[in-house]
Amino acid sequence: MIPGTMMDDCPLTLTALFARGGTFFARNDIVTRRLDGSVHRYAYGDYWRRVRRLANALSRLGVKSGDRVATLCWNHYRHFEAYAAVPAAGGILHTLNLRLHPTDLGYIANHAGDSVLIVDSSLLPLYERFKGAAGGIREVIVIADDEPAPQGCRDYEALLEAESDVFDGPPIDERQGAAMCYTSGTTGRPKGVVYSHRSTVLHTLAACMTDSLGICENDRILVVVPMFHANAWGIPFCAAMTGASLIFPERDLRPEPLLDLMAAERLTVAAGVPTIWGGILAALDENPGRWDLSALRTTIVGGSAVPQAMIDRFEQRHGVRVVQAWGMTETNPLGTLSRVKRHMQGWSRERRLEARATQGYAVPFVDTRHVDDAGRVLAWDGKSLGELEVRGPWVAGRYYDNDEQQDRFTPDGWFKTGDIVAIDAEGCVRIADRAKDVIKSGGEWISSVELENALMAHPLVREAAVFAGRHPKWDERPLAAVVLKAGETPAKEELTRYLAPKFAKFWLPDDYLFLDELPKTSVGKFKKSALREKYGDLLLG
Amino acid sequence: MIPGTMMDDCPLTLTALFARGGTFFARNDIVTRRLDGSVHRYAYGDYWRRVRRLANALSRLGVKSGDRVATLCWNHYRHFEAYAAVPAAGGILHTLNLRLHPTDLGYIANHAGDSVLIVDSSLLPLYERFKGAAGGIREVIVIADDEPAPQGCRDYEALLEAESDVFDGPPIDERQGAAMCYTSGTTGRPKGVVYSHRSTVLHTLAACMTDSLGICENDRILVVVPMFHANAWGIPFCAAMTGASLIFPERDLRPEPLLDLMAAERLTVAAGVPTIWGGILAALDENPGRWDLSALRTTIVGGSAVPQAMIDRFEQRHGVRVVQAWGMTETNPLGTLSRVKRHMQGWSRERRLEARATQGYAVPFVDTRHVDDAGRVLAWDGKSLGELEVRGPWVAGRYYDNDEQQDRFTPDGWFKTGDIVAIDAEGCVRIADRAKDVIKSGGEWISSVELENALMAHPLVREAAVFAGRHPKWDERPLAAVVLKAGETPAKEELTRYLAPKFAKFWLPDDYLFLDELPKTSVGKFKKSALREKYGDLLLG
Repeated sequence: MIPGTMMDDCPLTLTALFARGGTFFARNDIVTRRLDGSVHRYAYGDYWRRVRRLANALSRLGVKSGDRVATLCWNHYRHFEAYAAVPAAGGILHTLNLRLHPTDLGYIANHAGDSVLIVDSSLLPLYERFKGAAGGIREVIVIADDEPAPQGCRDYEALLEAESDVFDGPPIDERQGAAMCYTSGTTGRPKGVVYSHRSTVLHTLAACMTDSLGICENDRILVVVPMFHANAWGIPFCAAMTGASLIFPERDLRPEPLLDLMAAERLTVAAGVPTIWGGILAALDENPGRWDLSALRTTIVGGSAVPQAMIDRFEQRHGVRVVQAWGMTETNPLGTLSRVKRHMQGWSRERRLEARATQGYAVPFVDTRHVDDAGRVLAWDGKSLGELEVRGPWVAGRYYDNDEQQDRFTPDGWFKTGDIVAIDAEGCVRIADRAKDVIKSGGEWISSVELENALMAHPLVREAAVFAGRHPKWDERPLAAVVLKAGETPAKEELTRYLAPKFAKFWLPDDYLFLDELPKTSVGKFKKSALREKYGDLLLG
Repeated sequence: MIPGTMMDDCPLTLTALFARGGTFFARNDIVTRRLDGSVHRYAYGDYWRRVRRLANALSRLGVKSGDRVATLCWNHYRHFEAYAAVPAAGGILHTLNLRLHPTDLGYIANHAGDSVLIVDSSLLPLYERFKGAAGGIREVIVIADDEPAPQGCRDYEALLEAESDVFDGPPIDERQGAAMCYTSGTTGRPKGVVYSHRSTVLHTLAACMTDSLGICENDRILVVVPMFHANAWGIPFCAAMTGASLIFPERDLRPEPLLDLMAAERLTVAAGVPTIWGGILAALDENPGRWDLSALRTTIVGGSAVPQAMIDRFEQRHGVRVVQAWGMTETNPLGTLSRVKRHMQGWSRERRLEARATQGYAVPFVDTRHVDDAGRVLAWDGKSLGELEVRGPWVAGRYYDNDEQQDRFTPDGWFKTGDIVAIDAEGCVRIADRAKDVIKSGGEWISSVELENALMAHPLVREAAVFAGRHPKWDERPLAAVVLKAGETPAKEELTRYLAPKFAKFWLPDDYLFLDELPKTSVGKFKKSALREKYGDLLLG
């Protein structure tokens, strides 16, 4: 081998990326809308000065290379400061998921070995409930606007006040850890993933391509996705590198305040899970013409499959373009993205919509394949269902300090996603189900997601979740939990009639439950395990 | 240090990038317009099949990891096939500059250690002139459309015919060499740079960002820049990764045929050096409305500074947007790029134009600084002139097998570009001159480039080059070589009057030479060394 003659000592670091935003785009704004409706606004130049102060403060508190610094925060500018300062100081930013049960949080903080915690004052009561289990945390830095930090804690602003704007950080190896997230499956303990500087930098570059998220300096991005969820899908890094403005809604994710913010700040991009968008769609439907969203060029929806009906309604009724992305905590998270390829542009609207309702094809340097139960790689025929496996420089190769779950990685170096998919000749991945949610009826697989999407296209239905009911003869049969629109009355036969032309007869749900709301996970996905637990024996009589 | 848990065995390879184009965008077209005006058109799917056949053929001919495979070719689809196949086979693609003197070509092919040559049949006579000096070349593969390959050579198409579509390449280390270019300075022997897979992949990702070149699947790109010049600025790699169509003009770079191609193929992007664009501008001026360039979203101009007047005229008269980029063979080549930042959008047209006529600010992960004669780093004040130094993962860290020129690299790890620049508070680099072209008059520096740009804005002037004349008192004084528009008569006093309000008195040229054409280098830049050689003693009397 003859090596290249290019500079080998220029590592891919997050610090370079944040420095670019702070230097070249010093005047662009970063906005936080607080719970009381007031707005905090400052520029990347100020941001970058405060980042360097925070990095100095962390170093002074003893944070060294590899130390884990946890955050327990909503979406706001100071959380974004920690995103930059912790890796710059050589530490690993560990974003704790504030929706989890304190028992899980204690386990996670302890397992990760967190030694410093940055916490919103409003979340101190939550911290109190797991601090006993997270004894490694030796420094607690409290973010508060008015009240003083409690005894034994440090005040975020006071720390920054005392530091210099000049920060001379430790050298960074591109393969060292920069950030850390835990993912809670339905089985086993939460599992940690450590993103390296390299993996996040590469992810950021791929995400900023025009054909990916296309984030650029002129963008103003609403970060609805929580900052503790796969680093808010990496969007803060994309923004820092390009100078795009970030707009943080802190903790208020109600549809109307979000829409107010989108209109007032002339947002160009918004990112969040489908359940958030369901609420926004309903608000738009109920208030035609109230919000001017003409600046919005795209909404990025991910975290679970987006119903085709939702894409359609957003575009037809409100002129809002929905782009579906697929990813997981283990993929940093961008894996695939749905866009209309050049040769599809001549297709009928209906057919293009179908293509856009898939999870799309892989971003550069991510490889996709799907395998059957025996581990055989399946054909890209658009039909064969198998488990999606992925590979790439920003895909997890193992879990952090965890021996139990290493069977999620194949011997030939792929990550098993747990998603049951088909892949078509275009390379487009269509999620049929989560491996754990697929309904196994008499040896045949029924996709809960496809039934849900069809149900949600029905004009009377607001939300629908399909799950496996235990069955004496078929092992499992589909059950549908449905939330109807206000004022509508139940109509089981009507729903069956509606689904019948679209599916094989044995796919149709055996029964419907009409509920006021559906249980959801901490990141807004339907919690089918809860439905199964409560209603799973319905068919056993 | 705690390493990330992401996959460490997923190298950044060019093969992954080309496979993406061949798989996900198999239907998009690649076009070559031959010298006789006929058009060759095929799809990425066909391209990728032929790439794999060529890679098999090269392996069968004994090409192993690190072997240098030279090309001596114009811009066409088979050259593009070699771009992918040589690195896939583990080899290093060495694009020979067919504009060089045979003596230089012989030296370069020998110094690089080329063992296989892929050559256009039309360039065989050139090869004959240096083959004696390039004795390491053991296999010659001839690209021809009709005539058979000469005795002792292999036929490109016959080689592909015999191979399989399935290629199972050797494992690739991301730091291994993938491609190689020589750069010929005015002093010393040509110097080689070996791009690694990693450096070119990172360059490609940065170039495809919306705020860089923004290359995307919907683009149709005219590759005017020669494929032997810094890998055609990396554009072929950007296209392969995104599925953008490439349109190759082979060897015919006359303005009218290029404009015909741009209109007929609905091109969105075109890339070339300013001298090419000067000819195109003249043709557009002379034939208003003849070509429909409405699909063209941007023209990327680089290789030397673009006169502000050219940017202005393209946009005002013909609605064509010119984006200026700066780079060198040693920077793969994209280093900086000029775009209007968000806060500049409210500026007057004139002021925005001035900003766009700088070389712009650095793309992500490239660092810029400038230093004075004593090596002191200068302030970003927009005034202080110094030599530009750059650093980054796609910047050369050394020359290939060359001990003479290692003083181009600083002890603290920067590459000395040889460009004399100012950098303003926005980080925008403005090239005042090449270090070798700056005119040193009585201890003061005069920028030849600024004088040229001002001269070229004069309505009677087609081209102007300013160079140093030797002077008995001041050491050097500026002389201007000018090509006037057809039918115009010389007017030295008029030109002096035109320049006078714009410059200090001592900057004004001492004399003007009116020439029919200006000498140019093999890549279309003004050859000031030739002007200096011929006219440099004019002022000595």
